[in-house]
Amino acid sequence: MVVRVAVAGCTGYAGGEVLRLLLEHPGVEIGALTAGSSAGGRLGEHQPHLWPLADREIQPTDAGTLAGHDVVFLALPHGTSGPIAEQLGDDTLVIDCGADFRLTDPAAWQQFYGSEYAGSWPYGLPELPGQRQTLARTTRIAVPGCYPTSVTLALMPAVTAGLIDGHDVVVVAASGPSGAGKSLKPHLLGAELMGSASAYGVGGVHRHTPEILQNLALLGASEPTLSFTPVLVPMSRGILATCTAPLANPEIGIEQVRTAYAEAYAGEEFVHLLPEGQWPQTQAVLGSNGVQVQVAVDAAAGRLVAVAAIDNLTKGTAGGAVQCMNLALGLDETTGLPRIGVAP
Amino acid sequence: MVVRVAVAGCTGYAGGEVLRLLLEHPGVEIGALTAGSSAGGRLGEHQPHLWPLADREIQPTDAGTLAGHDVVFLALPHGTSGPIAEQLGDDTLVIDCGADFRLTDPAAWQQFYGSEYAGSWPYGLPELPGQRQTLARTTRIAVPGCYPTSVTLALMPAVTAGLIDGHDVVVVAASGPSGAGKSLKPHLLGAELMGSASAYGVGGVHRHTPEILQNLALLGASEPTLSFTPVLVPMSRGILATCTAPLANPEIGIEQVRTAYAEAYAGEEFVHLLPEGQWPQTQAVLGSNGVQVQVAVDAAAGRLVAVAAIDNLTKGTAGGAVQCMNLALGLDETTGLPRIGVAP
Amino acid sequence: MVVRVAVAGCTGYAGGEVLRLLLEHPGVEIGALTAGSSAGGRLGEHQPHLWPLADREIQPTDAGTLAGHDVVFLALPHGTSGPIAEQLGDDTLVIDCGADFRLTDPAAWQQFYGSEYAGSWPYGLPELPGQRQTLARTTRIAVPGCYPTSVTLALMPAVTAGLIDGHDVVVVAASGPSGAGKSLKPHLLGAELMGSASAYGVGGVHRHTPEILQNLALLGASEPTLSFTPVLVPMSRGILATCTAPLANPEIGIEQVRTAYAEAYAGEEFVHLLPEGQWPQTQAVLGSNGVQVQVAVDAAAGRLVAVAAIDNLTKGTAGGAVQCMNLALGLDETTGLPRIGVAP
Amino acid sequence: MVVRVAVAGCTGYAGGEVLRLLLEHPGVEIGALTAGSSAGGRLGEHQPHLWPLADREIQPTDAGTLAGHDVVFLALPHGTSGPIAEQLGDDTLVIDCGADFRLTDPAAWQQFYGSEYAGSWPYGLPELPGQRQTLARTTRIAVPGCYPTSVTLALMPAVTAGLIDGHDVVVVAASGPSGAGKSLKPHLLGAELMGSASAYGVGGVHRHTPEILQNLALLGASEPTLSFTPVLVPMSRGILATCTAPLANPEIGIEQVRTAYAEAYAGEEFVHLLPEGQWPQTQAVLGSNGVQVQVAVDAAAGRLVAVAAIDNLTKGTAGGAVQCMNLALGLDETTGLPRIGVAP
Repeated sequence: MVVRVAVAGCTGYAGGEVLRLLLEHPGVEIGALTAGSSAGGRLGEHQPHLWPLADREIQPTDAGTLAGHDVVFLALPHGTSGPIAEQLGDDTLVIDCGADFRLTDPAAWQQFYGSEYAGSWPYGLPELPGQRQTLARTTRIAVPGCYPTSVTLALMPAVTAGLIDGHDVVVVAASGPSGAGKSLKPHLLGAELMGSASAYGVGGVHRHTPEILQNLALLGASEPTLSFTPVLVPMSRGILATCTAPLANPEIGIEQVRTAYAEAYAGEEFVHLLPEGQWPQTQAVLGSNGVQVQVAVDAAAGRLVAVAAIDNLTKGTAGGAVQCMNLALGLDETTGLPRIGVAP
Repeated sequence: MVVRVAVAGCTGYAGGEVLRLLLEHPGVEIGALTAGSSAGGRLGEHQPHLWPLADREIQPTDAGTLAGHDVVFLALPHGTSGPIAEQLGDDTLVIDCGADFRLTDPAAWQQFYGSEYAGSWPYGLPELPGQRQTLARTTRIAVPGCYPTSVTLALMPAVTAGLIDGHDVVVVAASGPSGAGKSLKPHLLGAELMGSASAYGVGGVHRHTPEILQNLALLGASEPTLSFTPVLVPMSRGILATCTAPLANPEIGIEQVRTAYAEAYAGEEFVHLLPEGQWPQTQAVLGSNGVQVQVAVDAAAGRLVAVAAIDNLTKGTAGGAVQCMNLALGLDETTGLPRIGVAP
Repeated sequence: MVVRVAVAGCTGYAGGEVLRLLLEHPGVEIGALTAGSSAGGRLGEHQPHLWPLADREIQPTDAGTLAGHDVVFLALPHGTSGPIAEQLGDDTLVIDCGADFRLTDPAAWQQFYGSEYAGSWPYGLPELPGQRQTLARTTRIAVPGCYPTSVTLALMPAVTAGLIDGHDVVVVAASGPSGAGKSLKPHLLGAELMGSASAYGVGGVHRHTPEILQNLALLGASEPTLSFTPVLVPMSRGILATCTAPLANPEIGIEQVRTAYAEAYAGEEFVHLLPEGQWPQTQAVLGSNGVQVQVAVDAAAGRLVAVAAIDNLTKGTAGGAVQCMNLALGLDETTGLPRIGVAP
Repeated sequence: MVVRVAVAGCTGYAGGEVLRLLLEHPGVEIGALTAGSSAGGRLGEHQPHLWPLADREIQPTDAGTLAGHDVVFLALPHGTSGPIAEQLGDDTLVIDCGADFRLTDPAAWQQFYGSEYAGSWPYGLPELPGQRQTLARTTRIAVPGCYPTSVTLALMPAVTAGLIDGHDVVVVAASGPSGAGKSLKPHLLGAELMGSASAYGVGGVHRHTPEILQNLALLGASEPTLSFTPVLVPMSRGILATCTAPLANPEIGIEQVRTAYAEAYAGEEFVHLLPEGQWPQTQAVLGSNGVQVQVAVDAAAGRLVAVAAIDNLTKGTAGGAVQCMNLALGLDETTGLPRIGVAP
């Protein structure tokens, strides 16, 4: 059986990455490719690396075009997935790479996104406890944000094992600009970014903040707080998230911490706890669905420090989305997903 | 049947890329991993991205260790493959990613490499006319240099169609430093390279010069001459080769040229002539075995200009090597090779 | 005496670089700052590095605002300098960083720019023979394009000494995207450029082609021809121009060539012939008005190869402009210009 | 009066940057240039951008060679400055760019450096309260580490104004590899660094940790604690330090914080509090002695967030050193120091 897949938002970075992965996926057939202002053109004009699809015509993004596919990936600006998803039947697996259905708290949505709340869908992070079962039984999936993916996987074993209580978490995450999308803004120009690092969205205003807090709470943190600062650095792809939190008590040592992390990720195909002495680097997971994690205990500061590296477009967006698709379709979770990063 | 493969020089960039590809190859089992001074250590210390092999012990590079495998990849400094290959029987497929067996002219070897000439093996560029048959019947393959791969594929249709005669070819090729290997030299340090472009090996002294000339002659150029300048630019991987040559006659126009290129590469899975108006970019083939080619006619200058983009470690080294292995083993030529680059 | 200077196009990269240099120039006072759509805003919003001018209001670009200054720098899109310059009196030194007044041949202008020809002004490359005297006596200066600056300085000694005759020159020049200006185009986004090299304007169509040919002719080449290919590489600034041309005769050797170059640049403060064995790198001149030049003879190819490195925004645009201003004002030519690049 | 200056460690990045600045300094004459294993060679082989000194012979680093200069800059590996400084008389101004004399606590030195404690010298951060008077009266100056410079300037106003108490400070600082020196280690190769971000020295073990704590205590923090994580990102130069600390009380708002920062840096020539809405970027201070600072209040997290951008080699090392030299010599503090960064 071949699954027929449509991609809405095919000219952007997230949509392009979904297609890169689907082109190597053994069980899918690529159907409609849609976009907004680029409709009517050919995909090759926008995604020159996706050569097998170069001559495909881009169709307008509407429910009519997307209907009739087994799977629809939505890679659209937030606020636009909701109305389209409503018109797609429950026999279609809809996977939203955007933010619309991630948050369970309407007030948080309102505060950070400011538009009408669309509701929440099953959250597409299979590594969360019990989440694989949920994803296997749904036709609606909200793919996590790229930063929340990295931060949640960096801290999950510490929260679930009670090594930290989720209070006063501090995260600084370095990222490349592809996470901001193919957006024509001056600060995303190559000349501005190359040779430069800069902070943005500082002071608790970045939209991924409530999503990270939601995940910490879901893992068991009672009243989590978070200082989150994203930093733009000169690489196309990749997130390196440095996450620290106060140790639950001063007796916690590195052996206990490593054991908790090793156990938590023992069965995971994509999450790799590094050997002692090695620290994550984004290059090692470039283009792959892999996650590198390492952890330290800073006894003097009384804090656990966990670092995770992902490719923001792969595991952080499109790879995570395909992983969820595999689960929802009953395929092996790793089908079609690169496991090894393109390093150096 | 599973083919058992050994990799000599597993800690370097070429060896690491061979292993990245083999790990996703459905028909092989990875056997001995060998190196020189790193023998005794674990692969994970040197190649953190190759996590499934992290605990593998690195063995010393000698014929005894390599013997008994179906396939041996040699990713060694030039001058060292010869003695080892001699000790491996003809029932072993030996694929040399180094330079030792590329040149058919002992004098050219002597002039550019200065060490003892080891002979020549079937040349591992399947896209050359008739070369697939040769590669299907050999147990010894010399993988081309990365620059010669890009330049030969940029100019091949022009030479074979008589659009250029191979006289006064000028090539300037931008490359990332991974082509120089994991070599501890000051000019390869990140601080020296980032934000900077520099020329090296200027004036006809780069070792890939005779190899490019050999290919041009093989394609039918009567007395080819070449000015070749490599330029180091700030990206880990990739070669962008700009190749120009005098048009064979002033009547040659762009339609004729495009037709020749389109016909030459019509059946090739990895070589893509871009649509008019698009020019190659290395990002579009990053981590893949793909080649982007585009061509122009500069009537005022009387020159054809052809540009090719490859990933120097994939199609330029390890991907080309695996493509040849597939041919020699009777597998589909594209088995296990990524077709789509990791862009953006 | 303090010279009062206005800068039109102050929000762009060229205008910003003029201001960076003027802020450290001991003999000038910065007057009106003008722009198009950004008029009414503050400079700090657009040029955060120019902190001493952060609160300056941006005025509209018109002759009335620019009048009354001793010097006016125009850093505007081509086609817009002409009308403004016409309205500025001859007592104002007008220095055009754009293309409008560079070409002496109206037909070449028409072919490559396609708009109305505005005429030609004294050409702002002081290193050209006799040009300093011209620049000392003019109130109108056309600053060269960035590529023509690098290529002309790479080849000048070879042409004037008769080592090459200007026939069949081939140039491939790697450049960062700041040369394209602060232009909101998808291919200039950081995610597209980082980790990637790409060719553009291939086949004799780049607008700097006729300007380079004009310079070669001016230096004595009888009927110069040129194949020019610009290549975009991942660095904010810098041009590395690799220039080759057939040797005028096969007897020409490297000593003769080096002597010609050494003599040509012996008195130049900004142009540095590197010692044998060293090759230009753009990092070495970053942010400075310096030019690194090196040259080789490729006897087998019958070609001279000259390489030059400049900072496209400094010596290639704003630094060259300030150098010309110094000459026209009777100041020491090097006043206020950084001599040493910011390396590593 | 011209001051005669020697530079020990002239082949490294710190020594090279000292020389870049001294070459543009109006009041100094460059005397002996010394190094270790490179002694006997020419400076041009190691620092091609410092062309006016290209032919200077490198002398061995010993007290005899350095004696007789008015100023000696030491840019040496830690542990080596002490013995040399001892042999230089008090009439020589000795400025150590290394770590040897930064820490006032022998136990902290022992814990983090593990070699014999050499003592402490006046600390070369003129922006610290009262420090200019100290530096004006000394002939021994310990230049701060690059990270401590950025972090101290980011947090100083908050500590001195009592907005934070120095408890539970968390800092993640992105840096380019030039801070690690011209050191031939695999992880500093360009191919490893480009396109990649990685953490190192995680968990409280980086040597700049005790120096930052020392500065916080000196500013009035009673028992400061610090979680410090450095992150290597793909740019040659620059530090972007993201620094957070719990607000001293929940009433503190952004106006109060901005006022404290504005007052603290009102008279500083090199430290610039950005306008609201703008955040530091390292490009804006590249090659300059400038510091960009911005601050936010995250009420939900209960933390102040301050971000600083510096050039690690300029304000972070050599620029700070020259600034101190100016003070100690009674010159204007800004003499010879670039104020404007090389952006874009």
